[in-house]
Amino acid sequence: MEDRIYINEVAPRDGLQNQPVLVSLEGKLALIQSLCAAGVRSIEATSFVSPKAVPQLADAAELFARLDQTHGVAYSALVPNQKGLERAHQAGAREIAVVLSATETMNLRNINMSLTQALTVCQETIGLAKALGKRTKAYLAVAFECPFEGVVDSATVIRLAEALHSAGADEIVIADTIGAAGPTGVRALLTPLLANYGRTALSVHFHDTRGMAVANAWAALECGLRKFDSSVGGLGGCPFAPGAAGNLATEDLVLLAEQSGLVSGIDLVKLLDTVVLAESLVQRPLGGRSYRWLTSGKYKPASMR
Amino acid sequence: MEDRIYINEVAPRDGLQNQPVLVSLEGKLALIQSLCAAGVRSIEATSFVSPKAVPQLADAAELFARLDQTHGVAYSALVPNQKGLERAHQAGAREIAVVLSATETMNLRNINMSLTQALTVCQETIGLAKALGKRTKAYLAVAFECPFEGVVDSATVIRLAEALHSAGADEIVIADTIGAAGPTGVRALLTPLLANYGRTALSVHFHDTRGMAVANAWAALECGLRKFDSSVGGLGGCPFAPGAAGNLATEDLVLLAEQSGLVSGIDLVKLLDTVVLAESLVQRPLGGRSYRWLTSGKYKPASMR
Repeated sequence: MEDRIYINEVAPRDGLQNQPVLVSLEGKLALIQSLCAAGVRSIEATSFVSPKAVPQLADAAELFARLDQTHGVAYSALVPNQKGLERAHQAGAREIAVVLSATETMNLRNINMSLTQALTVCQETIGLAKALGKRTKAYLAVAFECPFEGVVDSATVIRLAEALHSAGADEIVIADTIGAAGPTGVRALLTPLLANYGRTALSVHFHDTRGMAVANAWAALECGLRKFDSSVGGLGGCPFAPGAAGNLATEDLVLLAEQSGLVSGIDLVKLLDTVVLAESLVQRPLGGRSYRWLTSGKYKPASMR
Repeated sequence: MEDRIYINEVAPRDGLQNQPVLVSLEGKLALIQSLCAAGVRSIEATSFVSPKAVPQLADAAELFARLDQTHGVAYSALVPNQKGLERAHQAGAREIAVVLSATETMNLRNINMSLTQALTVCQETIGLAKALGKRTKAYLAVAFECPFEGVVDSATVIRLAEALHSAGADEIVIADTIGAAGPTGVRALLTPLLANYGRTALSVHFHDTRGMAVANAWAALECGLRKFDSSVGGLGGCPFAPGAAGNLATEDLVLLAEQSGLVSGIDLVKLLDTVVLAESLVQRPLGGRSYRWLTSGKYKPASMR
């Protein structure tokens, strides 16, 4: 039986949210269409946050109105709270994601709530989303290291994951928000979580800040994990901050899967077209760690080897 | 007991050999001195190949005459054959390395010999080096994939490793010369080799062509391997060839070790000075996958965390 990985593409939301160049609705739809053409079947499309806080995603409702949710691609929307959920619901989103930072200070700095308050908001939002019949993902941000508190205790993450799971989350996503994880830490945290929730209800979200994202993805695969977030071209991170790097690039993850005998369902050659499109949309060079080689003409699809 | 990795720095030889900017002898000595100051204790210093074939390393004898081999750093020299060995011996090299490509076509294209002929040359060179009292390493190049023959059968590599070991090689170095390996293949090949030779007599040499070097290093660590080649700043590869990328960068490997709780003995902050020096020598930007982050001011040495 083929061994498969499941990729949730996050470029349209996590990738775009901090980009200084405002991408038009048509541009976002073209990006999503290109991702679908490459074989992507799960996409974080946008977020229903305050348009003032994230002007890039102010067109969330218009975007959802234009998505075809009948052709086998799952589109999710990030919602910060019940108000965001209501907007997502009105816009027709079928799958939503909530985010909880794993530390006290990160919650205070980011959303001016204590960890307990933020957890309560997430639990209530998940409960309401489930009542509305939506598939619900819960992100645990800064799950490995917090920029304010340092290394995060895995027991805390395990406890918070259980609180979100108990609230009804269909999937827990462990996020290395600042790209600080190493493969040893990935294994140490994912092993007990996989034992608790299994590979269909657990996912990871890596950033490549320290150049460790591919190694971390491999460590996660080795643990048995099969669901990943990634962003085409590595789009994401803050383009102004020195040292900030983007998300785990989808092309790197697909190549890792191919080199490991795993099926991703994504056509790397077509995905390179998506990188070019994304570059034109954000008006800067993109591309993961393998991009230079992939575009050198030396890559051959598995079917042509 | 501390778990330690052993890094053999290859920038002065493998890193420099294809660089278009000719680096002076003083420049090479400064590079080596900077590496030593960062804590590197094993350095591939040069190669005794034809000065016509590799003008960059024509000063091999002068370089060795200037090296202090009494202060705890092991310097090795690559030698292609007995003639090279004689030159290395006269220059005072105590440790030499021979290279055997694992495929018929690579040997024919590279040195105009069959695999059998090339193996014989290596065996004879190793035998003579041992008779001269030298520590001897044997590289198996294109051990995962050959640019002409494709994927290399692990049984072939295991057989050639044994032939080199039987000839007297103190250490076998498995080289992913074109950076084509993935972590699954690394594990599949290193596991039996580690069973045969143990971790003190086996090393790996990765290139980062496909962005997999850090993941491959992690896979090797997971197998139990502890000896690695790497090149500061990722120096190496052919700077003209599109899609060619350098060696596994020493800073990436040291960071991976630190993130995995392994001791390397190398001071990353000082090593960043070496990257800057190497950049000035080859007159182009260098730096591994973690370099941007390491130089952002966010990195803290373990002692300061």
